[in-house]
Order: sequence, then structure tokens, then C-alpha cells
Amino acid sequence: SDIVILSGGLGPTKDDLTKETAAALLGKKLKLHEPSKKKIQDFFEKRNITPTENNWKQAMAPEGAIVVENENGTAPGFIIEEGEKALILLPGPPNELLPMFEKSIKPYLKEKEPGIILSQTIKICGLGESYVETMIQDMIEKQENPTIAPYAKTGEVHLRATARAKSEKEAKKLLKPMTKELKSRIGGYIYTTEENVTLEMAVIDLLKNNRLTLTIAESCTGGMIVSRLINVQGASDVVREGLVTYSNKAKRKYLGVKKGTLAKKGAVSEETAKEMAKGGVFFTKSDVCIATTGIAGPGGGSEEKPVGLVYIGCNVCGKITVKKYQFGGGREKIRQSATAAALTLLRQCVLEHYSKVTFGKEKKEK
Amino acid sequence: SDIVILSGGLGPTKDDLTKETAAALLGKKLKLHEPSKKKIQDFFEKRNITPTENNWKQAMAPEGAIVVENENGTAPGFIIEEGEKALILLPGPPNELLPMFEKSIKPYLKEKEPGIILSQTIKICGLGESYVETMIQDMIEKQENPTIAPYAKTGEVHLRATARAKSEKEAKKLLKPMTKELKSRIGGYIYTTEENVTLEMAVIDLLKNNRLTLTIAESCTGGMIVSRLINVQGASDVVREGLVTYSNKAKRKYLGVKKGTLAKKGAVSEETAKEMAKGGVFFTKSDVCIATTGIAGPGGGSEEKPVGLVYIGCNVCGKITVKKYQFGGGREKIRQSATAAALTLLRQCVLEHYSKVTFGKEKKEK
Repeated sequence: SDIVILSGGLGPTKDDLTKETAAALLGKKLKLHEPSKKKIQDFFEKRNITPTENNWKQAMAPEGAIVVENENGTAPGFIIEEGEKALILLPGPPNELLPMFEKSIKPYLKEKEPGIILSQTIKICGLGESYVETMIQDMIEKQENPTIAPYAKTGEVHLRATARAKSEKEAKKLLKPMTKELKSRIGGYIYTTEENVTLEMAVIDLLKNNRLTLTIAESCTGGMIVSRLINVQGASDVVREGLVTYSNKAKRKYLGVKKGTLAKKGAVSEETAKEMAKGGVFFTKSDVCIATTGIAGPGGGSEEKPVGLVYIGCNVCGKITVKKYQFGGGREKIRQSATAAALTLLRQCVLEHYSKVTFGKEKKEK
Repeated sequence: SDIVILSGGLGPTKDDLTKETAAALLGKKLKLHEPSKKKIQDFFEKRNITPTENNWKQAMAPEGAIVVENENGTAPGFIIEEGEKALILLPGPPNELLPMFEKSIKPYLKEKEPGIILSQTIKICGLGESYVETMIQDMIEKQENPTIAPYAKTGEVHLRATARAKSEKEAKKLLKPMTKELKSRIGGYIYTTEENVTLEMAVIDLLKNNRLTLTIAESCTGGMIVSRLINVQGASDVVREGLVTYSNKAKRKYLGVKKGTLAKKGAVSEETAKEMAKGGVFFTKSDVCIATTGIAGPGGGSEEKPVGLVYIGCNVCGKITVKKYQFGGGREKIRQSATAAALTLLRQCVLEHYSKVTFGKEKKEK
């Protein structure tokens, strides 16, 4: 059975036309729905307000429609059935939409379509979307059940495998071989297979499990890395200090970057990133430091050092890695990309340091 | 004329059912659209791939529909007209949807409905949504043209007045008295009337215009304030240093918070916020410092100091203001609320310092 769900446009104003349009398209008249009228009446009486004419619009229902009660507002929802098909109209405000969907629409859909849909998410960092797609091209082409779809996030690729089956057990059985195949193809670039685990959570976990403390020294990302990390509950066990050393002066004062390095190589250079990562560990007595310096734009770029050029340095217990990146997009996008790249590099450096696993030479940075 | 626009579900997979459902609901058959078939053929030939059976699904069009060419993908859009009404189906991916809307749908809509719609945004900080609604209740109730609607953002309220008229000049004329009335009612809490100006941009501008440098000292917000500020182009003229002093040790080392204060009053206290704001200016030689300390949760709360308790200190050229806040929601929401409150307090303190204007006693913090 085929179902369309529309949300929004059920309110009292003249712009709220979803119901009217749907009814007109389906050739149905709107009729007064007494219980809804009563509810609106009560709502306004309780608040001692006289409803204006347009409020009664919300009590009109397409003829033959199932009226779905709204426990958190005055606009009811509607299910209009046409044979096996159904058009479902729901209110727009999330605090009305979500409870109504949970309470009334989910059971309705469940009854129409027995069985379940189960998804498995695989989250990848350090590989570009098109590269991941190439790795699993054959799986995408012959997908049926489970289906598989890639979603690009800034600096990450998420794959979602979705199985449809009669029971949860059966759906899991369908998903298992696909998940296994994906893991064997993509390997260490997968940072989690949990839907609600973020890259920053994976990084904090990794550091915590290895009892490592972290200092973040940010120039172009300007607090974005530390802000993402501190969003993780328990980050305080790991994050020693966050320093936004945006000016050259701050880079020298807090991280001991040499005056000569800044003068000869510039603030945006491999050498500066290296000294930032080195100084971050030294001056704050932490185990690990991730440092960024780059040109977020829109000004400040040159032919030699264009907008989007970012150096990221990572110091894990004295071993310093510096990588060069060229990001596209506007200022915010560049900073977001640099932040994701920094978390990715941090994860890879710690993993390599502890497991001696080297990430593939075929590694592609987006 | 009434129009419904649906986006997504036009792709080749079995889950892509928007077109099929719409056609079935409207009692229309799907017919092969030759130019679309040709396009798909070319697309796959160019890439040397054999299309699978399901790809041809994208060449099917509801009978009588206007087929809208997709210049960035293989799924065309459709306009299905029913008398004065129309159902418009568009592809989901933004890089296909947006150009198609701009190129084909906008002109179609414009032709159907001559005249223009113009909006004026008023952005407010430092007042809660329900408080703002009360201030303009009468205007909301008798709205017609322009309409007026409030939108709540974290720590902000945006009002959007929208006028419909035959010409831009006429629409502007309709909007002008409403904007004037809103300004006179809400006054200094309005930080901009420009659609694309953010609170952080307004704050950076204000500091720059007064030639003030800023240090940000963050505990619970953990880099979120500095990250928002540095997103503003030219922030480097204003932002001196950003210090994420999450640990007590860092609060002492970088900001000179006294050991006794931390021991007696605790890290989350009015006194600590005050010393952070004081030390931030002193140790970095800036003019202004905004400092936050609070309990972001989910752990760490107590009866006396519950999760969501945040103190924000603001030091403008030696004059220190500390405010106490109690925010709701999860960890991220609390940090976002504290960040918005910090930017708001910073703005108010600078304005008061320079203009001697005092923000109303009726001020409500959300």
C-alpha cells in the first residue's frame, strides 16, 4: 500500500491550505467535525479568549477522512483513504507532530503493513563520499533487501543498510552479512556502527580508554574542535585545555611557536602547525595535542596560500604528524571541514600509535 | 490558486513512490515519457554502465503532467494541474531540487500568481518568546497583510513580517509602519533587522565600532562562544584570545581565579565567574572579557546547584556584571542556551557602558 504524509499548513491562518488543497485535489468536500469544534471552543474558553472566525477553519474535515486527535494543539490530523492508498495530513509544529505520529500514525501504519523495517548505520571518517561509493558500487547496484544508501556529512560518510522483514530477528539476519562485508571492505575508517555515536564521542572514548589527556590548539577552527569534544559527556576526563590562538602573539605566548618560524614560514605553514602541536603538549603537560592553522577566508588568501588551505598537526606522546588540506566552500564550511579532519587525524594517529596499524596508502581526503 | 509541492521519492529504487502514489490518488496512469527515457539512456551510455530495469521507472510520467527537466540528475520533476490547483513533484537531492526550483518552478508560480511577497525580519535577543508574543499579541491577532509570525531560536526570537503586493514598492510601503511599531515596542532588544545578520555578527560589529578587543574564557560552553564569534569574517580584529578553562587548574593558570574561591564557593559560582571575567582582561590585556561557568550535565548536578545552572560574567573596561541563569534541556541545548545568553549579555553590557542606556527592568531571560 502506498502512503503520502504531509506535515504543516493545518493552522488557522489564510496561508494554511494543506487540507483545502488535498481535499480539492481528491474531489472531497470539507465538512464541520463537531468534536474538533468542541475542542477549539474549550481551548479558547479556558484561556478566556474569543476565537476569531478563522479558528473554526481547524474544525473542518475532508469528508470520509479519519480525524486524528491532537493532544497538544487545536489542529487535528487527517487520514484520507483511497482504496489501498492513503494521504495523511499532520500538523507542522514538532511538539504536536511527533506525539501524534507516535500515538496514532505509527499504529495505523503498523496495521496497514505488518512486519518491521530495521536499519544498521556504518559511520566512516577519512574517506570521501565518491571513494566510498566506488568501494561498494557493486553492492549498491544489486541492492534489494537490505537496501544500502550512502549519506555524506561534512568530513564523514554514513552508510545505512535497511532490511524489511516479518520479524526483528529475520531483519537482523538479513543485515548481518551486509554489515560484515562492509566492515571487511572499509576496515579502520569505520569509527562506529552505532546510530547515536558521533565522531567526537568515538575520539573521546579512544583517548579515555588509553588514559590520554588532550590539549586542543586552534587557529582557523577557532574553538570548533574543543566545542564538539566538550559536547561529549565526560569530556572533562580527557580535555586538558582548549586554546584558541588566533593571533600570532597568542601562538607564541601559549604554545611557544618561534618568532622566526612565523616570520619565515608564516602562521599558515607546516612548521607552525608542528610547533603548535609540540608546544601544546609541552606547555600543558598533556599526552596529545591537536593543532590547526589555516585560511578560513573569505579574505587573506593568496596564490601560494589560497583560502581553504589548512595544516593540522597532531602530537601523540611526542610523535608529531602534520597533514596539509585544501578545503572548499565558505568560511563556516571550511572550518567545519577542518574540524572533522582534525578529529579524524587525531583518531588515526592515536590508533596508529597504539596498534601500529597503518592506515592504507589509498587513503583519500575530501 | 492552491499548490502543493512535494520533494523526494522520485528516484529509481522501490522505495521511491511519490509519483506512483500521487498518480494513484489523482486517478492518473503513468506513461512512458520518451525524452526522459532518452536522457537516462545517454546518462548511462556516457558512463559505460548498463542501466538496470528500475532505472526506467524514472522515465514514467503521470498522464497530462508537465515534465520538468532535471539538469543535474536523471529524475525529472512533474507539474500535475487540476483546474486552478497544481501538485508539483520535485526530486529530493538539494543539488537537483534547488536549481530546478529556481529555473522552472519559480517562473511557473510567478505566472500563476503575479505580484510579489516581501518579508522583513526583526531579530531579538534577551527576551523570551512568550514575552515577545505578549508584547505584540494585538498585532498578531489582527494581522492580515502584512502577516506577522514569531520564530523561536535558541536564546533568540525572530519576527517575520510578510507583505503581499503588486510591486516591491507597494510591499515595502505595507511593511514600513509595522516595522516601525515593532521597533518602538521592543527597542534595544532588537539586534538587527537584516535577514542575514547573526547575533555573533552584531556583537563583533559592536566591539569593532568601539575599538574594543575581546577575550573569551569558557568553562561549560567549552569553545562554543569563541567558535561562533570566529565564524564572523574579520573576527580577528576583535578576538584577542579564546581560553577553554574547563578544569579548575586551567581557571587558576590562565585567569588567576583564586584557589580559595574555587574551594569555598566552587567552580560554578558568582564569585568564580567574576574572577574569570576579571582575570581574562588582566592577563590578556584586552578591553572586554566574557566568561562562563556552569553545569552542562547530565552528571554533576546537586540540589543546590542543579544541571543547567550557569553563571556568566562580563567585564567591560573594568566594570564587571555577573548574571545567574537556569537553563533546561540536554547537555548540548544547555551549552547553546548559555552561548546565546553570553553573546546577549556581552552586547547589553557594551551598549550600557557606551550609551548609558539601561535595559528595561522588565527584562525577561528565558
